[in-house]
Amino acid sequence: MSLDHSWFTEAIPATGTAFSLKGSKLHSEQTPYQQIEIWQTESFGKLMTIDGCTMVSTRDNFLYHEMMSHPALNSHPDPQTVVIVGGGDCGTLREVLKHSEVKSATQVEIDERVTRLSEIHFPELCDKNNDPRATLFFGDGIAWMKEVAAASIDVIIIDSTDPVGPAEGLFGKKFYLDCIKALKPNGMLVQQSESPLLHLDLIKAMHQAMREAGFAETTLLHFPQVIYPSGWWSGSLAFKQAGSKVSRLEHADALDTQFYNRDTHAGAFALPTYVKKAIA
Amino acid sequence: MSLDHSWFTEAIPATGTAFSLKGSKLHSEQTPYQQIEIWQTESFGKLMTIDGCTMVSTRDNFLYHEMMSHPALNSHPDPQTVVIVGGGDCGTLREVLKHSEVKSATQVEIDERVTRLSEIHFPELCDKNNDPRATLFFGDGIAWMKEVAAASIDVIIIDSTDPVGPAEGLFGKKFYLDCIKALKPNGMLVQQSESPLLHLDLIKAMHQAMREAGFAETTLLHFPQVIYPSGWWSGSLAFKQAGSKVSRLEHADALDTQFYNRDTHAGAFALPTYVKKAIA
Repeated sequence: MSLDHSWFTEAIPATGTAFSLKGSKLHSEQTPYQQIEIWQTESFGKLMTIDGCTMVSTRDNFLYHEMMSHPALNSHPDPQTVVIVGGGDCGTLREVLKHSEVKSATQVEIDERVTRLSEIHFPELCDKNNDPRATLFFGDGIAWMKEVAAASIDVIIIDSTDPVGPAEGLFGKKFYLDCIKALKPNGMLVQQSESPLLHLDLIKAMHQAMREAGFAETTLLHFPQVIYPSGWWSGSLAFKQAGSKVSRLEHADALDTQFYNRDTHAGAFALPTYVKKAIA
Repeated sequence: MSLDHSWFTEAIPATGTAFSLKGSKLHSEQTPYQQIEIWQTESFGKLMTIDGCTMVSTRDNFLYHEMMSHPALNSHPDPQTVVIVGGGDCGTLREVLKHSEVKSATQVEIDERVTRLSEIHFPELCDKNNDPRATLFFGDGIAWMKEVAAASIDVIIIDSTDPVGPAEGLFGKKFYLDCIKALKPNGMLVQQSESPLLHLDLIKAMHQAMREAGFAETTLLHFPQVIYPSGWWSGSLAFKQAGSKVSRLEHADALDTQFYNRDTHAGAFALPTYVKKAIA
C-alpha cells in the first residue's frame, strides 16, 4: 500500500528503509540549525523530528534515554561530573540525575529550540531541569569541549543527531582528542552510534577513530529503539584508561526505570557474533 | 513524505506504525491459505510477505531464525526430537539441524507454497532440506499435534504468522493442551510472540494460557528483528516440568551463527523491568 500525508514517514534512501507513524503535524519551524517538527501520533504520543528524522516519542523514548545513560554511569566507579553533548530534549539529563552520586550534570545543546519545544511537548522529560545539580548550556558542543578545564569530567554522553549536519563534527578523532583531554584519568565517554544492522561501517569507523585518538578501550552496547531506523540502536563506550570499566550492578536495580535493570545492563553488552568481529 | 508503490509497505492500523522497504514486486499468488508476495528490495535482498505482512528477508532473517531455535534448544538438556509448526521458509529447520544432538526435525507447514517459493527465492534457507534427519510435512499443525504420539517430542517450535487467519488456533489453551500431551516429561515449547513493545497484552495472554493449559513454567526471550513491527521481537518458552530449563552455554559458542552466542543467549533472557512485571 502507499502512505499519504496522514503519516509521518522517515524514508532513508541510503538504507532503503522507511518507518512511519500515523498522526498529524502540530508544529514546524526552521531554527538557525535545523527543521524541527512536532507530531501528534495515534499510538506513540508526541513525536519530535529534526530534518525529517525521528528524534523522540512519548511512548518509546525510555528505551534510548535509559540505555544511553545508566549502562555508562554504572560502568564508571564514581560518576560525579557528567556532561551531555546534545540531548536537547532533556530526557538523558533526567536519567543522569536519577543517580545520587552525580553532583553536576551539564547539558550542552546547540539548538535551544529543541529544549524549549521539549518543555512544551515532552514536559515529563524536563521535570529535572530545575534540579540544582543541572546546568542547561546552549552552544556548540565542539567549541565547549575545547575550552572546558582539562581532567574535569567523569562521563561524557554524546546524545546527538545523525553524523550529518550540525552533529557531523562529533563523530571524529579531532573531537575525541578534546574529550580525552577533558576527562579525568578514569573518565569515559558514551556516544550514540546508530544501528548495528544498518550502520556497522560507521560503528567500525567510530571505534577506530576513538582508539586512534587515544582511548585505551572501546566497547559497544545495543538496545531496541523502535522509532529509529531498524528499531535497533547502539551506544559506543570509550575508556581513557585500560581496565577502568566496572559493573555497578547493585546500582542498576536501585534505579526507577522501565527497561534498564541489572539483567538488561549485562544483556546490552552481550554482542552479536558478527558485531564482535566487526569492532575487534 | 509519502511513499509510492516503489516501496513495499506494511502499515498496521492497530499499532499506528508502518515499515517499508524500497523495491519491486517479483511475484504474487493467492494460495488456498493466504496471499504470498516476493519482492526484490534495494537493500534487504529478497523479501517474502504473507497477507501484506513481512515474513522473511535475505538480510535480516538470521536474527529471527537463530533466536527462535538456539536459545530454546540450548535450554533443553538433550533435544533429540524437534517439531517446527509453521516455519515454511525452512530457515528455522536449517538452524535446528546445526545441533548434532538433534536426531529428527519435522517441519509441519500448512502451506506448501511457502516452502516451494522459499526454495526458489531463499535457497540458502533450504540447504538442509535434504538432511536425512529432516521431514517436511505439509498439513495443518493443529490437527497434526492432536494425532502425534503422546510424550514423543523434546522441543516444539511454533514459527507461525501473526495470531490472525490460519495461525490463530496456534495461540490458545486448546492447542497448548495438545502440545503438552505430545511433549516428553522434560519437553518444552517456544513460540514466536510478537513485539515486547506493541503486543505486550498478547504476550501476557499467551503466558496465562500456557500456564492454564498446564505448563509448569514460562519465560520470554527478546531480540532485534528489523523487518517485523517495531524491529523488536520475542519468543515465549513454556516448560512441561518445573526446573527443567538448562543453559548449555558450551553448545552456544560451538554453533556457526551470526547473532547467537553464549553472551546473546543470556542477553535474550534478560528482560526489561516493565516486561518482567507484565508476565510475572
